[in-house]
Amino acid sequence: MTDDLKIFSGGSNPDLATEICGNIGIHLSPMETSRFSNDNLFVQIKESVREKDVFVVQSLSTPVSDHLMELMITLDALRSASAKRITAVIPYYSYARSDKKDAPRISIAARLVADLLKTAGADRVLTMDLHADAVHGFFSIPVDHLTAIPTICDYFAAFLDLSKVVVVATDAGGAKRAGRFAKRLDTSLAIIDKRRLSDSDVQQGLVVGNVKGLDAIIFDDEISTGGTLVSTVETLSRAGAAKVYVGATHPVLCGHAVEKLNQTFISEIVVTNTVHVPVEKQFPQLKSLSVASLFARAIKHIHTGESVSGLF
Amino acid sequence: MTDDLKIFSGGSNPDLATEICGNIGIHLSPMETSRFSNDNLFVQIKESVREKDVFVVQSLSTPVSDHLMELMITLDALRSASAKRITAVIPYYSYARSDKKDAPRISIAARLVADLLKTAGADRVLTMDLHADAVHGFFSIPVDHLTAIPTICDYFAAFLDLSKVVVVATDAGGAKRAGRFAKRLDTSLAIIDKRRLSDSDVQQGLVVGNVKGLDAIIFDDEISTGGTLVSTVETLSRAGAAKVYVGATHPVLCGHAVEKLNQTFISEIVVTNTVHVPVEKQFPQLKSLSVASLFARAIKHIHTGESVSGLF
Amino acid sequence: MTDDLKIFSGGSNPDLATEICGNIGIHLSPMETSRFSNDNLFVQIKESVREKDVFVVQSLSTPVSDHLMELMITLDALRSASAKRITAVIPYYSYARSDKKDAPRISIAARLVADLLKTAGADRVLTMDLHADAVHGFFSIPVDHLTAIPTICDYFAAFLDLSKVVVVATDAGGAKRAGRFAKRLDTSLAIIDKRRLSDSDVQQGLVVGNVKGLDAIIFDDEISTGGTLVSTVETLSRAGAAKVYVGATHPVLCGHAVEKLNQTFISEIVVTNTVHVPVEKQFPQLKSLSVASLFARAIKHIHTGESVSGLF
Amino acid sequence: MTDDLKIFSGGSNPDLATEICGNIGIHLSPMETSRFSNDNLFVQIKESVREKDVFVVQSLSTPVSDHLMELMITLDALRSASAKRITAVIPYYSYARSDKKDAPRISIAARLVADLLKTAGADRVLTMDLHADAVHGFFSIPVDHLTAIPTICDYFAAFLDLSKVVVVATDAGGAKRAGRFAKRLDTSLAIIDKRRLSDSDVQQGLVVGNVKGLDAIIFDDEISTGGTLVSTVETLSRAGAAKVYVGATHPVLCGHAVEKLNQTFISEIVVTNTVHVPVEKQFPQLKSLSVASLFARAIKHIHTGESVSGLF
Amino acid sequence: MTDDLKIFSGGSNPDLATEICGNIGIHLSPMETSRFSNDNLFVQIKESVREKDVFVVQSLSTPVSDHLMELMITLDALRSASAKRITAVIPYYSYARSDKKDAPRISIAARLVADLLKTAGADRVLTMDLHADAVHGFFSIPVDHLTAIPTICDYFAAFLDLSKVVVVATDAGGAKRAGRFAKRLDTSLAIIDKRRLSDSDVQQGLVVGNVKGLDAIIFDDEISTGGTLVSTVETLSRAGAAKVYVGATHPVLCGHAVEKLNQTFISEIVVTNTVHVPVEKQFPQLKSLSVASLFARAIKHIHTGESVSGLF
Amino acid sequence: MTDDLKIFSGGSNPDLATEICGNIGIHLSPMETSRFSNDNLFVQIKESVREKDVFVVQSLSTPVSDHLMELMITLDALRSASAKRITAVIPYYSYARSDKKDAPRISIAARLVADLLKTAGADRVLTMDLHADAVHGFFSIPVDHLTAIPTICDYFAAFLDLSKVVVVATDAGGAKRAGRFAKRLDTSLAIIDKRRLSDSDVQQGLVVGNVKGLDAIIFDDEISTGGTLVSTVETLSRAGAAKVYVGATHPVLCGHAVEKLNQTFISEIVVTNTVHVPVEKQFPQLKSLSVASLFARAIKHIHTGESVSGLF
Repeated sequence: MTDDLKIFSGGSNPDLATEICGNIGIHLSPMETSRFSNDNLFVQIKESVREKDVFVVQSLSTPVSDHLMELMITLDALRSASAKRITAVIPYYSYARSDKKDAPRISIAARLVADLLKTAGADRVLTMDLHADAVHGFFSIPVDHLTAIPTICDYFAAFLDLSKVVVVATDAGGAKRAGRFAKRLDTSLAIIDKRRLSDSDVQQGLVVGNVKGLDAIIFDDEISTGGTLVSTVETLSRAGAAKVYVGATHPVLCGHAVEKLNQTFISEIVVTNTVHVPVEKQFPQLKSLSVASLFARAIKHIHTGESVSGLF
Repeated sequence: MTDDLKIFSGGSNPDLATEICGNIGIHLSPMETSRFSNDNLFVQIKESVREKDVFVVQSLSTPVSDHLMELMITLDALRSASAKRITAVIPYYSYARSDKKDAPRISIAARLVADLLKTAGADRVLTMDLHADAVHGFFSIPVDHLTAIPTICDYFAAFLDLSKVVVVATDAGGAKRAGRFAKRLDTSLAIIDKRRLSDSDVQQGLVVGNVKGLDAIIFDDEISTGGTLVSTVETLSRAGAAKVYVGATHPVLCGHAVEKLNQTFISEIVVTNTVHVPVEKQFPQLKSLSVASLFARAIKHIHTGESVSGLF
Repeated sequence: MTDDLKIFSGGSNPDLATEICGNIGIHLSPMETSRFSNDNLFVQIKESVREKDVFVVQSLSTPVSDHLMELMITLDALRSASAKRITAVIPYYSYARSDKKDAPRISIAARLVADLLKTAGADRVLTMDLHADAVHGFFSIPVDHLTAIPTICDYFAAFLDLSKVVVVATDAGGAKRAGRFAKRLDTSLAIIDKRRLSDSDVQQGLVVGNVKGLDAIIFDDEISTGGTLVSTVETLSRAGAAKVYVGATHPVLCGHAVEKLNQTFISEIVVTNTVHVPVEKQFPQLKSLSVASLFARAIKHIHTGESVSGLF
Repeated sequence: MTDDLKIFSGGSNPDLATEICGNIGIHLSPMETSRFSNDNLFVQIKESVREKDVFVVQSLSTPVSDHLMELMITLDALRSASAKRITAVIPYYSYARSDKKDAPRISIAARLVADLLKTAGADRVLTMDLHADAVHGFFSIPVDHLTAIPTICDYFAAFLDLSKVVVVATDAGGAKRAGRFAKRLDTSLAIIDKRRLSDSDVQQGLVVGNVKGLDAIIFDDEISTGGTLVSTVETLSRAGAAKVYVGATHPVLCGHAVEKLNQTFISEIVVTNTVHVPVEKQFPQLKSLSVASLFARAIKHIHTGESVSGLF
Repeated sequence: MTDDLKIFSGGSNPDLATEICGNIGIHLSPMETSRFSNDNLFVQIKESVREKDVFVVQSLSTPVSDHLMELMITLDALRSASAKRITAVIPYYSYARSDKKDAPRISIAARLVADLLKTAGADRVLTMDLHADAVHGFFSIPVDHLTAIPTICDYFAAFLDLSKVVVVATDAGGAKRAGRFAKRLDTSLAIIDKRRLSDSDVQQGLVVGNVKGLDAIIFDDEISTGGTLVSTVETLSRAGAAKVYVGATHPVLCGHAVEKLNQTFISEIVVTNTVHVPVEKQFPQLKSLSVASLFARAIKHIHTGESVSGLF
Repeated sequence: MTDDLKIFSGGSNPDLATEICGNIGIHLSPMETSRFSNDNLFVQIKESVREKDVFVVQSLSTPVSDHLMELMITLDALRSASAKRITAVIPYYSYARSDKKDAPRISIAARLVADLLKTAGADRVLTMDLHADAVHGFFSIPVDHLTAIPTICDYFAAFLDLSKVVVVATDAGGAKRAGRFAKRLDTSLAIIDKRRLSDSDVQQGLVVGNVKGLDAIIFDDEISTGGTLVSTVETLSRAGAAKVYVGATHPVLCGHAVEKLNQTFISEIVVTNTVHVPVEKQFPQLKSLSVASLFARAIKHIHTGESVSGLF
C-alpha cells in the first residue's frame, strides 16, 4: 500500500515528520537543503520520486520566510522530478492570520501564499486549525483541514468537572472558535471584550458572560507572545474565575512568551506539536499532545483514496 | 471627467443603479435582457462601450441564479465589446454566506462565484458588507469593500442614549461584526449563545453578557427569514431588555419575514437599499437608508484613480 | 470494473440518470440540493468520491440558470472532495444556441458557459447533438459528442418507404444538419427559405426543393415553442407534401408548444429523453426514444479507456 | 490621433498592409524577417513600440505554417518590447476551416491556432469572413469580424437585374452563408446537394431549388482548387442556368485553380485582396475588390475607441 | 508493461522513431498527416489513445515551421482524444538557439515555442543537448534532457591517444559545453576568439590556448552551414594542430555544408541521428552514432516511473 | 511627467532607491514593513497608488528569503490597492545563479522565482547583469535587462593602457561574459580552466591563453565569498601577470570575503551599488560605481514609453 508513498520534511519540524512516518510505518525520504554563499537556498531531493505520491511536511514557523522558500523550492524540485502528486503538509500555516484587509493597502497574505504554493507545484494541501475557516477557500487546490479540537477537548474532559467549566474567548473575533469548543464540551461561554491596539499590545478588557467560581479554559488557535493570554488571565482572576487553563493548537511561543507564561498562575497550557518547541522553551505547565497519528491517518487516507472527513 | 464612465444595471436593483447615476450626474446606460424560448438568457448592450470604464450594478438577490447568470453574460458581452475596464458592482453578494467547509463534500461557493465572475470578465469588484471579511480574499481581482456600518451607526447615534445601549450579536459567529459596531458606538456587547440547527430553524438561546434595562441593537449583516431575529428578540425580552432595535445592511426579507417581523415588538429595523424591497414588502418599522451616494463616490474615485479607502 | 465509477444527478433529469445507471448496473450516488433562505443554492455530496471517476448528469433545461448553477456548485464540491476525474454529462446543452455574434455587443454564451464549467471543475464533457458542431471547439477540455441521429433514423427507416421521403430543414441554417440526416436515410433534401424575425416569431417561407407527393421529415436539433414547426408544416402542406413527420433530439417544449403541436396534422414527432418531458406535457403524436443506453455505453468506455468514437 | 498607432506587416500580404496604411495616412512600420541557417525564423522589430497601439497584418495563406510562425514570433517580440496593445490583423484565417470534429481523433485546429495566437501575445484579433461564424467563439480575446459581403453584393447589384438572379450554395454546409447573401440581394436561393468525398474531390450533384433561365451567383467564403466551382458550374448549366457568376472573399487559388477556372464559362469571379494573388495567377474573369479601406476604418476605430459594429 | 505505451512519429525523422520502437519492442502507432488544398495541415491519429501514455517523436528540423505545426496539431488531437499523458519527444529542438535578447525587440523564441507546446497539449518534453542548459527552464512542464556527450566521448576515446588531444570550442559562447566535453575526456581546452558577424558569416579568429602538435576535437551542439567549422579548421591548421576531428550532436547540414565539409581535411565528423540525414547528404568522413537506444530507455523509464537521471 | 510615477523601496537597498529618486527628481514613496510576533511579514503602503505607475526597488541580497517575501507581499499589496502597473526593480537577482539542472531532482529556482513574482503581481521586471542571458527568458512578463559593463569598461579604459591588458574569465562558464567585456575594451581574452568542486570551494586551475606581462582584469558578474577570485589571482601571478584588477557588477561579499580580498595583491576591485555594502565591509581597494542614474533613466523611459534599448 505504501510503496508509492513518500514523505519528505523541510527544516521546520523534522521530529513531527519522523513521528508521522513512524505511525505509517515508512522511513522519512531524504532531501538536503543548503545555502549558496549568496544566501540562495538550494534543495536536492535525494531519491527518485518519479510517479510517486509525495508529501512534504513543513510548518510556517520561525524563520517563516526561509521555511516558506524551502517549501516552495522543494515543491518545484519534486514537480520537475516528475512526482505523480505533491501534497504540502503544513501543520501550522502562520500566514492564515493575514486573512482580511483591516487597513488600506495591505496584502491578504494568506491568499497570496496560497497562490504561491500552487505556482510552486503543490497539488493539494493538508493543514490544521487555520486561524479562520474561510482561509480554506483561499486555496484553489483541494485542502484537507484537520482539527486538534477533539484531541484537546478529550484531554480536558478526562479530568475536569465540565459542569463547572466556562470556555473563554480572548476577544470577539475568537468567539466563533471558542463557541465550537464550548459546544463540544457542552459548557458555557464567555468573551473578553477588549480592543487590540497593536499586534502584541492589548488593552485590558471586561468579561462578557459569567466566570465567577468557574474553571476557565481560554481557547485560541495559537500562542505567540503570550501577551494576550497574560492579560486575559488577569481579567479572569479579577472576575473571580477559579482555575485557569489554556488550550491552543499552535505553540508559536516567540519573544518572552515562556517567561511570561511561567509567571502566571495558569494551571496547564495544552498545545500540540504542529510547531516544534525546543527543549529550552519547554516548561512544566506546558503539555504537548501529539497530532502525528492524526496526520498519519490523513496521509494514508489521501494516499489510498479513503474519506478524510471521517477522521474528525 | 465622466465621459468615459458608463454604468449599466442588471435586473436585480435598477432603482439603486439609477440613484447612483443621479448622484454622479450621468444617465444609466441601456442594456436589454431577454429570455430565449428555451430559457437561455440573452443580454444586449445597447450602446458602444469600446475603451470605456464600465460598471455593472447587480445584487445577487432572489432569483439568485438568474441574477448571477445575467451578470456574467453581461460581463462577457462587455469584454468582447472591448470595454477598457469592467467593474462588477455587487451591493449584496449573497454567496458570501458559503465561505467555509462546515460539512464534508460541499462547495465554498463564495470562492467559486468569485472565480466564475473573473472568468466571465470582471476586472474589479465593488461590494458592501460581505458576510465575512475573509471573503474579500476569495477574489483574485481587486475588490473595494464598502461598509454601511458608519451610516447605520450615525442613524442610531442621532436619537439613542448610547450609555443605555447594548449591541447584541445573534450568535458567536456574529460577535466580531457586532463588536466592531459596538466599538464604533462605544457601547457594551452581548452575545446570544445558541446553536444553529439548520439554515432557518434556530434553537432558543441564552444571553452572554448583560442586557437588563438596556436598549438593545441587534446587529447583523443580512435579514433573510427573520426567524433568528424573532427568537433573539424573545430571548432579549426574557432577559429584561428595554427597547429592541435591529441594524442590518442587506434586507433579503424572504419567506414570511415581513409577517414575522411585523408581529414582534421591535421598535425599528434599519437597513439599506443594497437589496430592492418591493412596496408590498415594506412596513412601518422598516427604515431604509440609501447607500447610493456612497457607491457613487466609490465609483467616481475608482474611475478617477483617487483613494477609495478614505471613504469609510 | 465499476468500483471506482460514480454517477450523480442534478435536478433536471433524474429519470435519465437513473436509467443510465440501470444500463451500467450501478446505483445512482446520492447528493442533496437545497436552497438557503436567501435563495443561494447548496449542494452536498452524500458519499465519499475521493479518487473516484465521477460523472454528473444535468441537462441545461428550464430553469436553465438554476440547473447550471446547481451543476457548477456540484462540480466544485466534487473537485474539492478530491474526485479523481469529473465529467459533466450534459445531454442537452441549451446555450449551444448562442454560438455566434449576430448582433453587436452580445455574448457568445456557449463559449462563456464552456469556460465557466471548466472553472467550476469539469475535467471532461459528454453531450449530445449540439446546435452547431463548432460548439465542440468552445471547450478547452475534452468533449465526447454523441448523436441521436442514427437512433432517430433507424426509427423512421423501420416503417417509412424512404424512396418517397424528403428531409426538410426549417431554414438555411439547418441545411447542414438536415443534409446529414438525408444522407444517412439516402433521401432527397428540401429547405424552407424564410427569415427569422425574432426568437420565436417566424415569417412564412417558400420551399426550396421538391416535396410534392412526398412524405416529409422535418429535422431539427430541438423543439422549443413549436412555432417554427407549425409554420413549416403549413408551408409543406401548401406545397403538396403527403404526410409530415418531425425528428428532433431535444424536446424543450416550452410555452404553448404542446397545444400548438397537438393541433397540427403532424403524423408523429420523434424525440429523445435528453430533456425530461413531464407527463402533463406528453401527447399521442409525441414518441420519445431513450438515449440512456447510448450514454451508458459512452460512460463505460470513458471510464475504462475504450474508444468512444466507435459508438456512433 | 495616429501618433501611437503602428502597423507592421508579415510576409503574406505586404501590398494590402501598405494600402491599409495609405488609407489611414501613416507609413508601414519596419520589421525584418530572416531565417537562421537551421531554418529557424528570426524577426526583428525595427523601431520602438513601447506603449504603442500595434497592429500586425498577416494572412494565413501559403506557406501557412511559415506565415503563422512569423506572426507568432512577431507578436512575442512586440509583447516583450512593451507594446501597449497588440492586434493580430488576419484578413484570411485559413484554419477556420478546421472548426469541428467530423472524424475521430483530429484537432479542431481553428481553436488550437486561436489559443496559440493568445499564448504568443495577441490581445485582439481583426479578421474577415471566417468560414463559420462560430469560429469567432474559439478566441478568448476580443475579435472584430469584418465581412466583405456588402462589398461584393454592391458590386453585383450595380449591373445585374436581381429579379433574374438566384444565389447558389455549393453544398448544404454553405446554405447559411449563401442565404445571408441572398437575403441582402433579395434574390431566391438554390443549393447543390452533393457529398464531399475528400478535401478537393467532389461528386456531381443535384440542384435543390430553381435556377432555370436565371443568372446564378455561386457564393462561397474561399476559392481554393476551384474543383468544387467547376463541377457546380457544370451542374448549373445542365439545370438550365443562364450566366454564372462567382463571389468569394478569399482567393486562395492553389494547385491548378487558375487553369480550371479559365476554361469554364464563368462570366466573372469576384474576390477581395485578403489573399495576395500574384500577377502570374491573375486572369481576365477575376475581379479583385479591395478591402483595404474597410480594414483601415476598423483599425482607426479600434485605435480611437469608436464602435466597429457600425462599419458593416 | 508496454500495453499502455504508444509512440507516434511526425514527419521529421520516422527512421529514428521506428528504431526507438524497435528498441522497446513495440510497433510505431499509425497517424496520417496531409495538407488541405489551402495548405492547412491536417493530422489524424489512426488508433485509439484513450487513457494511453503517448509519446510523439518530432525533431524541429527543416522545414521547421511545418514540423512544429505538425507536432502541435498532433498534440492537440491526442489531448482531445483523451490520451492519459502526452510527451513531446524532440530530439533536436532547434529554437533553443534563440535563447536570449542579444538585440532589441526580438523574441526569445525558445521560450515562446516552449509555451506554445504546452498550449498545444504537451504534458512533458524529452529532448537532447539543448543549445544552452538554461533552455530547460523555459518549459513550465517537466523536461528530461538527455545528452549524447558520453556517446560521442566513448567513440573518440576508443581510438585516440587522449594525452595528445585538445578539445576546441569554436567561440567563447561554446567554452562551457566544450569544457564539459574536455573534462569528461580529461584533455586540455582551447577556444577560438572571434566575433560572429552574422548568423552564418564568421570572422577568422585567434586560438586562445595551445593546440600545436595536438589532435583537436572541435566540439559543438550542432553543425548547420559548416561555415564556422571550416574557418575553425583553417585557424587550427595555421596554429599547428595535427589532425582535426569534429563532434556534434545535431547534423543540421544545411546549405552547402556537405560540399564545404568534404573539402576540408577534417579526419572525421561524429554526429548522431537526432536529425535525419538523407542518403544524398552523407559522405565518407561523416560518422553517425545512433541515440535510439538512449531515447528508448528514457521513454521506458518515463513510462514505468523509474529514474531517468541514472541514464546519463 | 512624473505625477503618476511612484517609487517604493524594500529593505535591501534603500540608499540606491533614494539615489534613483534623486536622479528623477521625486521623493521615495513611504511604505512600512514590520513583523508580526509569529514572524509573518506585514507590509503597508502608506499612500494611495490607485492608477499610478509604481516601481518597487528590491535586491535579492542577504537575507534573500526575507527580501523576496517582502517584495512579493509588497507587489500583492500594490496590486490589490489598484496600482495601474507594477514594475519589480531587482538590481541584483541572486537566484539567476540557479538557472539549470546540473544535478538530478533540483529546482531551476531562477524560473520558479520568476513565476512567483508574476503570481505576486509584478507586471514587469527591471534588472541588471543576470548571471546568464537566458534567465531573461524565464520571465513571462516583459523584462528590461540593464548592464553595468559599459560603466565598468569606461572606468578601466580611463587609466589603463588597453594594449597591455588581458581580460580573464574565472572559468569556462564565464568565457562568454568576459568575451563580451574583452570585445568592448578590444583586448585579448584568457580563461582559467578549472572545475568547480562545490559552491565556494574551487580547484586551482591552468591559464588558457596568454597573460604574461599583461595587466589582467578578472571579470565576473558577482563576488560572493571571494574564494574564486583569490585562487584566480594566485593562478595569474604564477603565470606572470603584471597587475590584477577585478570588475564585477554585484558586490555580494559574504562570509570572509572582505578579509580574503584585502590580503590579495589585487590593485582595484570595481563593483556597483546594486547590492548595498555596509561601511564596515568597505575597504580601500573596493571602488563602487553608482548605477542609480542608469536605473533612473530606465525607469523614466519605461514610464514615458520611450525606448530603453538605447540606454546601453
